[in-house]
Amino acid sequence: MDQPMNQHCHQSAPTQFVDAAGIRFAYRRFGRPGSVPLVFNQHFTGTMDHWDPAVTDGLAKDRQVILFNNAGVSSSSGDVPITFEEMGANAIAFIRALGLKQVDVLGFSIGGFVAQEITLQAPELVRRLVLVGTGPRGGQHMATLTPEAQRIFGATYKVPEEIWLKVHFTDSEASQAAGREFLKRFLRRTENRDPEVNEKVATAQIEAVGKWGVLREGSYEYLKTIQQPTLVVNGDDDVIIYSINSWVLQQNIPNAQLIIYPDANHGSLYQYPERFVRHVSMFLSE
Amino acid sequence: MDQPMNQHCHQSAPTQFVDAAGIRFAYRRFGRPGSVPLVFNQHFTGTMDHWDPAVTDGLAKDRQVILFNNAGVSSSSGDVPITFEEMGANAIAFIRALGLKQVDVLGFSIGGFVAQEITLQAPELVRRLVLVGTGPRGGQHMATLTPEAQRIFGATYKVPEEIWLKVHFTDSEASQAAGREFLKRFLRRTENRDPEVNEKVATAQIEAVGKWGVLREGSYEYLKTIQQPTLVVNGDDDVIIYSINSWVLQQNIPNAQLIIYPDANHGSLYQYPERFVRHVSMFLSE
Repeated sequence: MDQPMNQHCHQSAPTQFVDAAGIRFAYRRFGRPGSVPLVFNQHFTGTMDHWDPAVTDGLAKDRQVILFNNAGVSSSSGDVPITFEEMGANAIAFIRALGLKQVDVLGFSIGGFVAQEITLQAPELVRRLVLVGTGPRGGQHMATLTPEAQRIFGATYKVPEEIWLKVHFTDSEASQAAGREFLKRFLRRTENRDPEVNEKVATAQIEAVGKWGVLREGSYEYLKTIQQPTLVVNGDDDVIIYSINSWVLQQNIPNAQLIIYPDANHGSLYQYPERFVRHVSMFLSE
Repeated sequence: MDQPMNQHCHQSAPTQFVDAAGIRFAYRRFGRPGSVPLVFNQHFTGTMDHWDPAVTDGLAKDRQVILFNNAGVSSSSGDVPITFEEMGANAIAFIRALGLKQVDVLGFSIGGFVAQEITLQAPELVRRLVLVGTGPRGGQHMATLTPEAQRIFGATYKVPEEIWLKVHFTDSEASQAAGREFLKRFLRRTENRDPEVNEKVATAQIEAVGKWGVLREGSYEYLKTIQQPTLVVNGDDDVIIYSINSWVLQQNIPNAQLIIYPDANHGSLYQYPERFVRHVSMFLSE
């Protein structure tokens, strides 16, 4: 049963469950009740605990925040589908199961593909859209992992979570320092932490990425049908989904604003959490 | 003689004069005293009265705003030089003549070329840089006026100021409506209005644009020497200086943030004045 959770924050919000489309979805809900909720869609192999508390709590000051695991991910049941269309359909089933008629949707990385699918399949459900570190169907260098992503995801790390220093941050001293601050925040929640995902998740998500990324004639046409005000955010040097794809999103979505942060890789929202929160709050409140 | 003008605003600020480099520079100064002043550099054939009061007064709430005419323009004496290097040197002479040791610099369109020159020639003078609707030396389609600019500047207009509806706004209904609101604001000041520029100004500025715009091997290298935090802003459909040039600026200036507004042409700051003021204030205050 869902309860308003305004007394809670990123660290304390209990994991709740709701059933829809044959899946038991795990989610957490906190922030200011009464506002249009903002639903977060997570990156490759990420769980609810891969969000940055500085971002989620920052945004929860003025609005309700909903984190969830899509089907097959971590504490949610079911299998990860091998298309983003199906992941979008599952996300819609989850949102509707909470009884929500309209939400704002934020998607990060492949979560941005899911966010686009939610918007395309259920436009009446989405008020505003925030796309971070992501790209369009058939975007540039998106049919396979980029060479940098292959290297980063293929390497082994003594401290497993240090992979995120490479995925989300640039090699500059300032960015790596911001990355180490992010890791502290990211590890702060210790009670009822989400289990890390199993191997099947990565395999299915990569298969889905391969299908999403194929460039076809008119690949970007679907973007012109997105009517929602959209905010596109990225770092200027995203090596996971190249930054130019954020430009492509902006140029093709009719009502899109673009913000690019300096000296930042895939995880620009984790490198500049205060700035990101201010920009997103401003966009969602306009 | 320069006086603090915090009681003044865009409409009421008197035109003052200061002598430097053999030129009598006309300027207006208003806003909150004590802050780092923000010096505005104007677009092609524009005077102090071509700025949008919603932008200048909006920014003047938290900082001092300085508008001026560079050499040879409107109420300033002298001739318009035929290089942006010289216009930058003149602007530096003007700023120093006011006794200022450090300023923030905003440049719009060819004013952005002047702003870059100020920063390159006197880096110690510039704290932060805001570049709007502009591009780098040798940027894309910048060696001559774009076909759209040739058409717009070559046409005649029954109501002369309606040229700015074409220069600064897109053809969409929403953008044209914003343009008509801008024209009302822009015409509101009636007392001590700057004289419109003479034919010589356009000729000299176009000659300077031709030199600035030539693509050379390593045209963008100089951007890597700009150390100031920089904010680059443009509309997504700038037909005067193509929007992609804002992307190029962001990708080459080491510490640059980019913001692109939807359904907006060259004058994005006049289409979304409140949003622009918030973004610039946030950037200058960080």
